[in-house]
Amino acid sequence: MIEPTTLSVSGDRIVATYELHGDPATARSRADALRVEQTIEFPADLVPDDDIQREVVGRVESLDEVGPEVARAVVSYAVETTGFELPQLLNVLWGNSSILPGIRLVDVSFPDSLLARFSGPRFGIAGLRTLFDAPSRPLLATALKPMGLSPERFADQAYRLALGGLDLIKDDHSLADQEFAPFRERVEACATAVRRANEETGGQSVYLPSLNAPYDQLDARLDVALEAGVGGLLVLPGLTGLDHLRHLAATVDLPIMGHPAFLGSFSASPTSGIAHDVIYGTLMRLAGADMSIYPNYGGRFSFSTDECHAIADRLVAPLGGLAPAFPSPGGGMTMARVPEIVEFYGPDVTLLIGGDLHRGDDLTRTAAAFRAAIS
Amino acid sequence: MIEPTTLSVSGDRIVATYELHGDPATARSRADALRVEQTIEFPADLVPDDDIQREVVGRVESLDEVGPEVARAVVSYAVETTGFELPQLLNVLWGNSSILPGIRLVDVSFPDSLLARFSGPRFGIAGLRTLFDAPSRPLLATALKPMGLSPERFADQAYRLALGGLDLIKDDHSLADQEFAPFRERVEACATAVRRANEETGGQSVYLPSLNAPYDQLDARLDVALEAGVGGLLVLPGLTGLDHLRHLAATVDLPIMGHPAFLGSFSASPTSGIAHDVIYGTLMRLAGADMSIYPNYGGRFSFSTDECHAIADRLVAPLGGLAPAFPSPGGGMTMARVPEIVEFYGPDVTLLIGGDLHRGDDLTRTAAAFRAAIS
Repeated sequence: MIEPTTLSVSGDRIVATYELHGDPATARSRADALRVEQTIEFPADLVPDDDIQREVVGRVESLDEVGPEVARAVVSYAVETTGFELPQLLNVLWGNSSILPGIRLVDVSFPDSLLARFSGPRFGIAGLRTLFDAPSRPLLATALKPMGLSPERFADQAYRLALGGLDLIKDDHSLADQEFAPFRERVEACATAVRRANEETGGQSVYLPSLNAPYDQLDARLDVALEAGVGGLLVLPGLTGLDHLRHLAATVDLPIMGHPAFLGSFSASPTSGIAHDVIYGTLMRLAGADMSIYPNYGGRFSFSTDECHAIADRLVAPLGGLAPAFPSPGGGMTMARVPEIVEFYGPDVTLLIGGDLHRGDDLTRTAAAFRAAIS
Repeated sequence: MIEPTTLSVSGDRIVATYELHGDPATARSRADALRVEQTIEFPADLVPDDDIQREVVGRVESLDEVGPEVARAVVSYAVETTGFELPQLLNVLWGNSSILPGIRLVDVSFPDSLLARFSGPRFGIAGLRTLFDAPSRPLLATALKPMGLSPERFADQAYRLALGGLDLIKDDHSLADQEFAPFRERVEACATAVRRANEETGGQSVYLPSLNAPYDQLDARLDVALEAGVGGLLVLPGLTGLDHLRHLAATVDLPIMGHPAFLGSFSASPTSGIAHDVIYGTLMRLAGADMSIYPNYGGRFSFSTDECHAIADRLVAPLGGLAPAFPSPGGGMTMARVPEIVEFYGPDVTLLIGGDLHRGDDLTRTAAAFRAAIS
């Protein structure tokens, strides 16, 4: 038994909802283990009836059987356990519980005292609508592909796509600093090409390089991108960290697309991990993505319509003072599906079509047709 | 159709093995989709018979049915697709495929030209044995707990544990920069306390603070730790990134423990994600962990004995010139289980016991008993 501890806490609490899959008879003991695991990770019987036991250890606020072999535990945590920092917040929500069997994080809400520490999406839906002079239509995005092309050929693609009037022309998420198209050469060439197209059309297309870099090169690549005059950033927080995304959103005056590469394992299993809407919706937005890319229903990735709706809802639902972000469904989308997808999401959506734009002889004409399809 | 491309590649290839769960009739088309998804993510029919098609797109080297509803696809990738960088390597292995249904990464091998770019564990098993003057015994580790204690009380714990002769005294993975025990105060107090104990005993215990920090504070916290004279680092790459771990191992002359917080979702489902041994074994070691912490079998986390054996094997199996790393099973381990665990792993293991050491009246005496139990 350790000596009693006296602490001062605000009373503000983070509220997380977990599904517990398995024998309902064990749900109570599992919920109790969870609230300890995520905080003190220490035998509860060795802590006296003190402020650690009362305030630092999580609390099971409710526990309900919600289906055969599924219970729903609402667990709250003192906001002070996070230190008001995103990595430790993620640790409290899903650090060791990620290793526990049959637990899924399905909902989370934050007190204002925590949300006030996050700047969230810098542009958000309203800011991007102003930037692109698009008061009400969906935004249009595409990717420079395939890996293996030279910087000059990517730049030529970017130029033609911008001429066609697409808003967002991003690197494919596979582009990093490969010798086929090194980062600096590619980014300088593409940024220049999109600027040239804008000068010709009077448009405001932006090029977003992929900032997928080693830890010790992230700042340097950002500098290269800023010097090249890029109009936004593509960020892969599964690889470079949700907190790096947060840092970018807080410090760089450019719109950010968040890409789900490497994150899919969190949502892959219905009985473990983190629910689609929490990771691609709440967490992406909390970290500051202006647009959250995720695989659309009906593509090759098998997200359901319910999951896609839930993600889109989280991106615009109230979240302290944080701006709403654009849902950006992608993944094998085609021109033919545009009307259906706009019908499904409504106008507050960024439509991301990659490879399918390359069907046909003239990239500019195809891009213009994409633009016309949503006007 | 895009214009043909000519490229020069080395011929060195990364070889990844994926399990494809589901209808065996679709295995061939899914393997073909996978090799495209992980590289060019572009309609294969729009790429001519050129070097992109031949060299950049992954190759299905073999495809075998290995069980009911399970096929095994061996897919190779040109090493140049990674740009020889860890985040993009992870992207090639498991970026978008993380979002595809029913696929699990179960094995990977790297060409020497890639491994030569990684320094791996700086100390490894041999280096730590020298550091701790422990030529053949298991190493002993514990954690400072619970969150909520003050820096002074953690320092007192650290002092007593070091007096008892434990090798590695780490922060609990839940400790970040909370107001209960701010990083600087905690780290300075604990490093001082362990040094004082070493002076009294002539021992060489080390204190490892948890470097779980926001992106823009990682370097500053490392500086605090170095100035305080810590003896090692605890790193949570699920939260701060595998590449940050790589960067630390390459640049900081301290042993590193890698902790699995937030990574559990990768291994949680048997039909998706990344196999236990690949993520806690191969990838942790490639990134440079000298010790890889993972939940031991028979604890509260439900890893199996096979999974634990496989992780331990990956940490010591040949991997280019990279040093072997210590398996560090933990998670609800008890003193009573020490003989069984040493029998299971053999002497090349770091035993991590946290809360259970606090049973009994005298932490130093319990720690000394732990030490005696493996002598």
